Amino acid sequence: MYQDVSTASQRSSAVSPVVALLTDFGTSGVFVGVLKGVIARIAPHAQLIDLTHAVPPQDIATGMWELEFSYRYFPVGTIFLCIVDPGVGSGRAPIAIHAGDWYFVGPDNGLFSLILQQQTIHAATALSNPAYRLPHVSSTFQGRDLFAPAAAHLAAGVHLKEFGPFIEPQQLQRLEIEQPLVVGKDIQAEVIHEDHYGNLISNIPASLLPANGQFFTQPGIRLFLPKRQVIIEQRRRFFAESPAVEQRKDEPFLYIDSTNYLGIAVQNGNAAQILGISVGEPITLRLA
Amino acid sequence: MYQDVSTASQRSSAVSPVVALLTDFGTSGVFVGVLKGVIARIAPHAQLIDLTHAVPPQDIATGMWELEFSYRYFPVGTIFLCIVDPGVGSGRAPIAIHAGDWYFVGPDNGLFSLILQQQTIHAATALSNPAYRLPHVSSTFQGRDLFAPAAAHLAAGVHLKEFGPFIEPQQLQRLEIEQPLVVGKDIQAEVIHEDHYGNLISNIPASLLPANGQFFTQPGIRLFLPKRQVIIEQRRRFFAESPAVEQRKDEPFLYIDSTNYLGIAVQNGNAAQILGISVGEPITLRLA
Amino acid sequence: MYQDVSTASQRSSAVSPVVALLTDFGTSGVFVGVLKGVIARIAPHAQLIDLTHAVPPQDIATGMWELEFSYRYFPVGTIFLCIVDPGVGSGRAPIAIHAGDWYFVGPDNGLFSLILQQQTIHAATALSNPAYRLPHVSSTFQGRDLFAPAAAHLAAGVHLKEFGPFIEPQQLQRLEIEQPLVVGKDIQAEVIHEDHYGNLISNIPASLLPANGQFFTQPGIRLFLPKRQVIIEQRRRFFAESPAVEQRKDEPFLYIDSTNYLGIAVQNGNAAQILGISVGEPITLRLA
Repeated sequence: MYQDVSTASQRSSAVSPVVALLTDFGTSGVFVGVLKGVIARIAPHAQLIDLTHAVPPQDIATGMWELEFSYRYFPVGTIFLCIVDPGVGSGRAPIAIHAGDWYFVGPDNGLFSLILQQQTIHAATALSNPAYRLPHVSSTFQGRDLFAPAAAHLAAGVHLKEFGPFIEPQQLQRLEIEQPLVVGKDIQAEVIHEDHYGNLISNIPASLLPANGQFFTQPGIRLFLPKRQVIIEQRRRFFAESPAVEQRKDEPFLYIDSTNYLGIAVQNGNAAQILGISVGEPITLRLA
Repeated sequence: MYQDVSTASQRSSAVSPVVALLTDFGTSGVFVGVLKGVIARIAPHAQLIDLTHAVPPQDIATGMWELEFSYRYFPVGTIFLCIVDPGVGSGRAPIAIHAGDWYFVGPDNGLFSLILQQQTIHAATALSNPAYRLPHVSSTFQGRDLFAPAAAHLAAGVHLKEFGPFIEPQQLQRLEIEQPLVVGKDIQAEVIHEDHYGNLISNIPASLLPANGQFFTQPGIRLFLPKRQVIIEQRRRFFAESPAVEQRKDEPFLYIDSTNYLGIAVQNGNAAQILGISVGEPITLRLA
Repeated sequence: MYQDVSTASQRSSAVSPVVALLTDFGTSGVFVGVLKGVIARIAPHAQLIDLTHAVPPQDIATGMWELEFSYRYFPVGTIFLCIVDPGVGSGRAPIAIHAGDWYFVGPDNGLFSLILQQQTIHAATALSNPAYRLPHVSSTFQGRDLFAPAAAHLAAGVHLKEFGPFIEPQQLQRLEIEQPLVVGKDIQAEVIHEDHYGNLISNIPASLLPANGQFFTQPGIRLFLPKRQVIIEQRRRFFAESPAVEQRKDEPFLYIDSTNYLGIAVQNGNAAQILGISVGEPITLRLA
């Protein structure tokens, strides 16, 4: 499916390339606006889309998961500008990666671990060429001075190879990702994300669950929260399923989240608050 | 004034159609970004504008009011993608409506009640044609899989009739909207919105108030908060009116909000906090 | 470097002019979305960039600093639409300024003080021409009815002189800006900003500090917080410098912020919370 085209601008020809932004900058100040000003100066035709700026400060793993939940839905040639960068100014390399149908620009600190695991890596380079940075690069806001200019120059049609020397994909940093552990009929896993509604997303992919809807009907499936006195047996295809059962209103249930991972929810309620649990909570799913 | 043009793209010709987004998705995660990625893929020339993503989770009535406060200011042909959808995955129909000068895409759950009340309905359809959905439609994020693709295909020039069968306007869901009740010289009403500054907006439209500025000058007008020991007599044309009266600094006053409904404010203060009241509070305006 | 071109649209020719938005509107409601709808109607080709909407309500000084930290990074011809306007509806003039390479639209209340101090003022006008306002101008949301239309008409190519009479630059409102006071080897200053990470930015510009990196190496430099029992001697070029020194993990240090002002930070921590200080805190930097 993937055609080896060498620049984002070639691919999109008549259409503006998309630059999608994922950061831990928050929206309380002007950091994100400044990134966009820098990009608009270099690549005035780029279309800017905010993916999220609410990654908790310095939380690389959450940034990695948020990217995993979203990148596939973006146009071919999209340039993901991803900045969660506690090591800004230190030795960590600034990089750009061409992987699958997309480009990824950011620090080499593990933020792209799941991309590297899932997609074919066409090329990766260190962003060392001063021609594609702002004239003065600060030691504390390289998003503005280095990463945004690189993403913008990519959007303006500069080849990946112009930015600096190629890096071997196997040399790129990867986070140790907690994989669910299958032990007989048990899957030992953890909560890796809490969404805006308080739904809890686990690291159990739908591919580990009984297929063809049997996850919802097969008896005996239950989720244990070892640190709590809680077992969840109820499963639902969607949040408002069996809404007539009023007495079960605040009961948590299992569902397959739109991210394609197993989730825990409460209908019209906040599961994280009701259960009192959050990211990192160990869980065990028993399949029989 | 309205010309019966059949697609958004015809209307805007040289200009990109606007897709305006109103959801309860919040901005803590990637939900909104993913919607935009999906739209950019299908309709790369669409201009995306965030209306709000801070509708309280599952609060259809607030979404309805926020839309009422804003849609008239948008360009002819704007497509409003509105997702406050507690019934996602259940039997509620996904719909698109061509009403007045605009298009509205979302769940048929009452979100569009005020549009239906105020605008001429040219056409409404159920979004059942799989050609205008993503290949896999999840049961929990139909904003991504179904509504965003529909809005994007509309923006790309697909006719409303292509999306599915027409629905008779009178069959569309409507919320029961609390109308102010005029009893002699009293208007019994309620607070329907609190804005970012803590100003409280009522459901009393300016059209029920004495015209030509007489609301501000006519003696005897006062607002009662039956559940509190509070009567508000002061009225102001704008927030900083009579700013010299320092001793009245924290006093609440009545004004005509920019939404064209009666409001309650405190100058440079948060009326909702100072009065301790919020959405749903009953109020009575006495006009003599 | 600056060429005297008279309209934003001439300058950008093939490229859409940027309209950058800075307000205290927050993102909990539809205020910002409505501004954008109004602009899209008048100037459909304008590119809209959010600078920030999180200026604390009515806090003109913070708005002024946020603009200072960002405007230089935006494209030539950018129109900054800035609305922090506690005097809305009162006598304060709505204005547009052409200063340096950019345009600034907003209330004449001091928001542009630092622009006026730093840039050449080419022209300033009062926005009195009703042709460039919405038909009805409310007394409480002139961002929508007056400022956004003015910014949009500028983006659409209308000359500054069409909006109303010219104003002499020296007649424009200026805030009294706390300048750092140099007394021998001491610089008496204050904290003027707290960023998303809790880093504290002072009003001491880098130009007052020892040059060529000597600020980081010269012995004896220390910051006093007169209201606390705190002296900060540690200085870092970047946040992750000397990360091996684990016992110094929560220690505050001085750095030169990306805004080019002296800052106080804690590595991977929130300096404002850890030190318990915020905007307005007096500080003294001793340079020997």
